[in-house]
Amino acid sequence: MKDSVNADYLKKTTKALPVVVAKGDGIGPEIMDATLKILEAANVSLDADHIEIGEQAYLSGNTSGIPESAWEAIHKKKVILKAPITTPQGSGYKSLNVTIRKSLGLFSNVRPAVSYHPIVESKHPIMDLVVVRENEEDLYAGIEHQQTDEVVQCLKLISRPGSEKIVRYAFEYAKKYNRKKVTCLVKDNIMKISDGLFHSVFKEVAKEYPDIQAESQIIDIATARIANRPEEYDVIVTLNLYGDIVSDVTAEISGSVGLAGSSNIGKDYAMFEAIHGSAPDIAGKKIANPSGLLHGAIQMLQYFGEVEKAALIHNAWLTTMEDGIHTGEIYKEGHSKQKVGTMEFADAVIARLGQVPSHFKKIEVKEGEDFRINIQEKSHAPKEKKLVGVDVFIDHRDRDANKFGDALTDSSKDFLKLKMITNRGVKVYPGGMESTFCTDHWRCRFISKNAEVIEGKPDYKAIDYKEVLELMMALNKAGFDIIKTENLYTFDGKLGFSLGQGE
Amino acid sequence: MKDSVNADYLKKTTKALPVVVAKGDGIGPEIMDATLKILEAANVSLDADHIEIGEQAYLSGNTSGIPESAWEAIHKKKVILKAPITTPQGSGYKSLNVTIRKSLGLFSNVRPAVSYHPIVESKHPIMDLVVVRENEEDLYAGIEHQQTDEVVQCLKLISRPGSEKIVRYAFEYAKKYNRKKVTCLVKDNIMKISDGLFHSVFKEVAKEYPDIQAESQIIDIATARIANRPEEYDVIVTLNLYGDIVSDVTAEISGSVGLAGSSNIGKDYAMFEAIHGSAPDIAGKKIANPSGLLHGAIQMLQYFGEVEKAALIHNAWLTTMEDGIHTGEIYKEGHSKQKVGTMEFADAVIARLGQVPSHFKKIEVKEGEDFRINIQEKSHAPKEKKLVGVDVFIDHRDRDANKFGDALTDSSKDFLKLKMITNRGVKVYPGGMESTFCTDHWRCRFISKNAEVIEGKPDYKAIDYKEVLELMMALNKAGFDIIKTENLYTFDGKLGFSLGQGE
Repeated sequence: MKDSVNADYLKKTTKALPVVVAKGDGIGPEIMDATLKILEAANVSLDADHIEIGEQAYLSGNTSGIPESAWEAIHKKKVILKAPITTPQGSGYKSLNVTIRKSLGLFSNVRPAVSYHPIVESKHPIMDLVVVRENEEDLYAGIEHQQTDEVVQCLKLISRPGSEKIVRYAFEYAKKYNRKKVTCLVKDNIMKISDGLFHSVFKEVAKEYPDIQAESQIIDIATARIANRPEEYDVIVTLNLYGDIVSDVTAEISGSVGLAGSSNIGKDYAMFEAIHGSAPDIAGKKIANPSGLLHGAIQMLQYFGEVEKAALIHNAWLTTMEDGIHTGEIYKEGHSKQKVGTMEFADAVIARLGQVPSHFKKIEVKEGEDFRINIQEKSHAPKEKKLVGVDVFIDHRDRDANKFGDALTDSSKDFLKLKMITNRGVKVYPGGMESTFCTDHWRCRFISKNAEVIEGKPDYKAIDYKEVLELMMALNKAGFDIIKTENLYTFDGKLGFSLGQGE
Repeated sequence: MKDSVNADYLKKTTKALPVVVAKGDGIGPEIMDATLKILEAANVSLDADHIEIGEQAYLSGNTSGIPESAWEAIHKKKVILKAPITTPQGSGYKSLNVTIRKSLGLFSNVRPAVSYHPIVESKHPIMDLVVVRENEEDLYAGIEHQQTDEVVQCLKLISRPGSEKIVRYAFEYAKKYNRKKVTCLVKDNIMKISDGLFHSVFKEVAKEYPDIQAESQIIDIATARIANRPEEYDVIVTLNLYGDIVSDVTAEISGSVGLAGSSNIGKDYAMFEAIHGSAPDIAGKKIANPSGLLHGAIQMLQYFGEVEKAALIHNAWLTTMEDGIHTGEIYKEGHSKQKVGTMEFADAVIARLGQVPSHFKKIEVKEGEDFRINIQEKSHAPKEKKLVGVDVFIDHRDRDANKFGDALTDSSKDFLKLKMITNRGVKVYPGGMESTFCTDHWRCRFISKNAEVIEGKPDYKAIDYKEVLELMMALNKAGFDIIKTENLYTFDGKLGFSLGQGE
């Protein structure tokens, strides 16, 4: 006989929760129906608008998969419960998820990863962590340029407010959910300025949470450790790309890709979903597991402050799982008792509303507990920015760095001083090595004519942007093919740019 | 009684192998001595110069840790056998490994990951894969700029020749080592141009190797699969950052971080090493395991074409491992027979030269086998490049995108046409959403005045770079703070740049 909780939990939510529901594609409609049935049985009342986004919208010519009417509903309700969608084969379709995240400022992607071993098999029986992934910036800004025949470029952008929001979110999350440790993952031994910014913001914010342990690890070694010993991690906070990789690793090794939900949280908007895809191969067969989307819905209830309803459903789900009522992909002779379809699984969860698990740890709600997270944006006095040079990138096909450097020095000498040339980051002029392979993409660093260079180290002197424009005109006139420029600044006197490898 | 191989294997190498030996820091000297002792006992004759690189060189003021005399020896011998080094605490020190790799054009980092379970414990008993990582490009070019108070940037550079060399190396490696499959890892669903280039080169080169299975996977999902089911992988080829992460994951989950070697291969130069660090905490105690560096040395022998010597030593090492002669970090009651120090382990390997393992698969050398890999660089006819616009990036602190866009349109209209403005990749002008969070970093896309824009899609028309310069002068005069520019090109008529999110 299982414990059961107070029947008060079954009373109606005090007010209807405003939400847009997207049933999605593939198995989406089936698992959404099952999820909504459970919410209804738990007396969660929704003020729901249904929207059609995804495959049909794409195929009818909308490149982002989201029609105008869907945007209107989203802007009205501000919260999205979304089943998986299908992006049609072929080019020209943009990621619907990326569009929603970035348009609505959903800066935080939160993905818990829990091992339900031995009921769901995993090589990692002890695992209960949360990946908090920055969701808007990094290489995912998608700013790419090909500017020479040989070299293409993608911009990695990291902002101070973006870093601060996500780091603060991770600590607030840890505090609300009573977690003990936040681990920051970066690669600032290589990317000292960009990942370095994220890391320094982390250290700064961590000081405001003295009760939570804060640690930082290098992404490559950390991913390896997470893959091998996930039990050592609690809350992980990281950049967009690293978070993408790490959250997939944690989901996979937990054994629960089909069971996990995910939330995307912004200042005013939020989106909740399963982490898995639309599985068109089993669509319509009524065998799909609704658990991933249900976990998304549980996170949504927490977001709305309906923590008792969230716990009610979560406990019923845990009880169903440990009772051995499993959909086909989890079902295993010996471990499982009954193989069920999508709706039967939902009915089994509904039948257990009010029960709490005995094998798994039950979800407890403390008096007055509230998981809603508000991030206060802090304002910072801007630093003093001073222009001290420019990196001019030139397309040049003759691979002789010395000849090229000498010609460039000659054409520029009346305007700015050529400090060095690098090719893919390695200094090749002056004094480069012949063994360095050179592409057609040369970065030429110019500084003030008046800057003194002592043992390779200049005292950067302020220049006017007009000097940069004059230099560019002169180089253009001399036949150099300028493909891009990057200004060099100091901020409060500190260099805002990296040195060349070998400089 | 173990099998033993023909004593011919113990004859001298036909000529002395030219190599510079760097004993490194921490446990470096001990494990190098052990490794050299094994090579000598196996009658490998070396024409060796010893160099001092690492901690002492750093501390004596050399920012890259490599004195000029070491460079001279390296340029003479061209092959480096390197023990781990220590980078001193503090800033201003550059990665010695990155400097060597990039200066010598060591484009390929090769890291085998093998599970020796149950002799070395691993959750993955079946695992025998190789990560071939691009070693020179990607975000590791280290080109970073802060250009506004809020936003920093790192350039990800991918080149066609760089991609082609590493992909070709991976297939040649698979062919030489009789491996069946090469898996390419990219994130080209997001980075369509940069990762897209790598992926398209992979598909192109794969066609030349019809006997080797070729597949491509998305890095996030793939890392998760590798972490969970490494037995499904054979040869993996990928970009620098992804390879850094994935090779650490494979080393860690194999259980053999302390046992694995790594090679860094270029056209004319090569460097061989252990994958682990200098472990200063156990330095001098004579307990460190020399196996990682020994595996580096085995790869070096293969590089020199000394495949019989490589197999001789490799088989002796496998036999030592399965005989239960283990250094402390591997030693385990029950599994192991004898706990030994660094030199005793080396002596145990030496005592087994000529033996082959019975539990592990023995290394066999076929008549005439040669693992030397030569990459033929193919030349390609350059594509026709046409300038069709420019992205001008502006530092602007008022977050009202419409006011900013209107003012910019006004100042630019006599020169080029403002097509759109994005903030961290999301279109905010014209017609942006208020919910999009804006930083002080704005990307403003300009195209020809004569380009017609139909339903948001322009017919890009050629412009002259002088028009870009005129635009920049006008914007500067109007008080806009230009921080960087990126030209927009078509190549053989195909767009060489990405569209904005929401464009």
